[in-house]
Amino acid sequence: MECGGKMRIFLTNDDGVYSEGLRVLWSRLKRLGEVSVVVPETEKSAVAHAINIFSPLKIRHIKIDRAFNAHIVNGTPVDCVKIGVSSILKQKPDLLVSGINPGANIGMDVLYSGTVSAAAEGAVLGIPSIAVSIDAYKNFHFEAAAEITVKIIRHVKKLTLPKDTVLNINVPGCRAGDIKGVKVTYQSESRFEEEYEEREDPRGNSYFWLKGVFREVDGEKGSDSDALKRNYVSVTPLHLNLTDHNFLALLKENKFENIELK
Amino acid sequence: MECGGKMRIFLTNDDGVYSEGLRVLWSRLKRLGEVSVVVPETEKSAVAHAINIFSPLKIRHIKIDRAFNAHIVNGTPVDCVKIGVSSILKQKPDLLVSGINPGANIGMDVLYSGTVSAAAEGAVLGIPSIAVSIDAYKNFHFEAAAEITVKIIRHVKKLTLPKDTVLNINVPGCRAGDIKGVKVTYQSESRFEEEYEEREDPRGNSYFWLKGVFREVDGEKGSDSDALKRNYVSVTPLHLNLTDHNFLALLKENKFENIELK
Repeated sequence: MECGGKMRIFLTNDDGVYSEGLRVLWSRLKRLGEVSVVVPETEKSAVAHAINIFSPLKIRHIKIDRAFNAHIVNGTPVDCVKIGVSSILKQKPDLLVSGINPGANIGMDVLYSGTVSAAAEGAVLGIPSIAVSIDAYKNFHFEAAAEITVKIIRHVKKLTLPKDTVLNINVPGCRAGDIKGVKVTYQSESRFEEEYEEREDPRGNSYFWLKGVFREVDGEKGSDSDALKRNYVSVTPLHLNLTDHNFLALLKENKFENIELK
Repeated sequence: MECGGKMRIFLTNDDGVYSEGLRVLWSRLKRLGEVSVVVPETEKSAVAHAINIFSPLKIRHIKIDRAFNAHIVNGTPVDCVKIGVSSILKQKPDLLVSGINPGANIGMDVLYSGTVSAAAEGAVLGIPSIAVSIDAYKNFHFEAAAEITVKIIRHVKKLTLPKDTVLNINVPGCRAGDIKGVKVTYQSESRFEEEYEEREDPRGNSYFWLKGVFREVDGEKGSDSDALKRNYVSVTPLHLNLTDHNFLALLKENKFENIELK
């Protein structure tokens, strides 16, 4: 992962350049190596693995202050990773980090997450990639989460992430002193139970807001949501090949391939 | 899957209401049951599992002609499925079908596909769900693909799709008579090798178009791309739990959980 002792780190997120989680993580990562920041121009939460194919991308290089600068792209998190690696960076990075996202990305929510998808795209491009989220919606302890991320990076460097595998890190929202440790977890089946709230605009037209409550599936010991609930950092290895091999075998056994098409 | 002999089918896509693939599939499916069409207002290819959480949705009911009507939503394919099931349909559908998409959705491309994500969202909501794409970019044989889809639906009804599993169907682009049969396949590692083409607008500013060539990984016998190449219909069961259980076990073996956080 190193290049002459200096790691090249690609930092991105789905919240844009003014995100405090991004800034704090950048501060901490730059002690590890050379950090390039490429982020969406506007907040792109819940855009999952979306990419722009019908409109071109533009890149702007902006300096926020003397130390912190970033490339901003009028696209999605995955667009940022694609164009960052192919057209902005001079060399392929040694590590890609996406975050720190305010709000956990666990259970079925992983499917919608721009933060996780950015890291997934890193893996598609053959870069060891990590997504980091914090399980809080206010009073964020970003410094502690950044410190934990660096500890995990140091550990992961000793292993080799398999091809197309991403580490999805979720840090509990509590104070650093109350975090109990690290758990390697699986993606829980928990998800938001959602509904749409119908409202009326001033011209009498209906519009609908998505709202929901995160419902935990009971008894999922060892899952991402179980770890967070017990104040452990959750580290979930996710892979990008979605084949359901068990059902594939069942279909074959049931002579599914014998369907007569003529 | 039936309701008093009449199946309730939810039909969606990522191309919008004027898509020929949608219309042909609707014509064929309505002989199976009651078909409700809910589609994005504008084309939403490559938006993956994106949803709108910062802007509300609006629904319009439109009649294209005497027989064909649809609800159109100013959102993504996944938005259409969520709001369709929760706020448009009176009852949960027995089956969700997404397509027919012009262009295959195979290999790593599955990650970006709005067509597949709409079906995936159906599975999240507990509905047996199928995505259908055709491996062609012109001279589409949509009628043949719709006929094959119905044959596969009849077969799947005999089995039960596992929770959170989607069938991803890809039909070869050739004439119906040249299709050799059905293969149950796995998601290949093949993907677009992409780059950005830089251009200059009339005001001298750079902009970037994504372009790419689909590169097949060699020797993937039994994969989705292998089936299409040999003129077989590819049926891939995909599941939505992304946990990499092999690497999870390796991390535990390597005492990853012993990281000292204090």
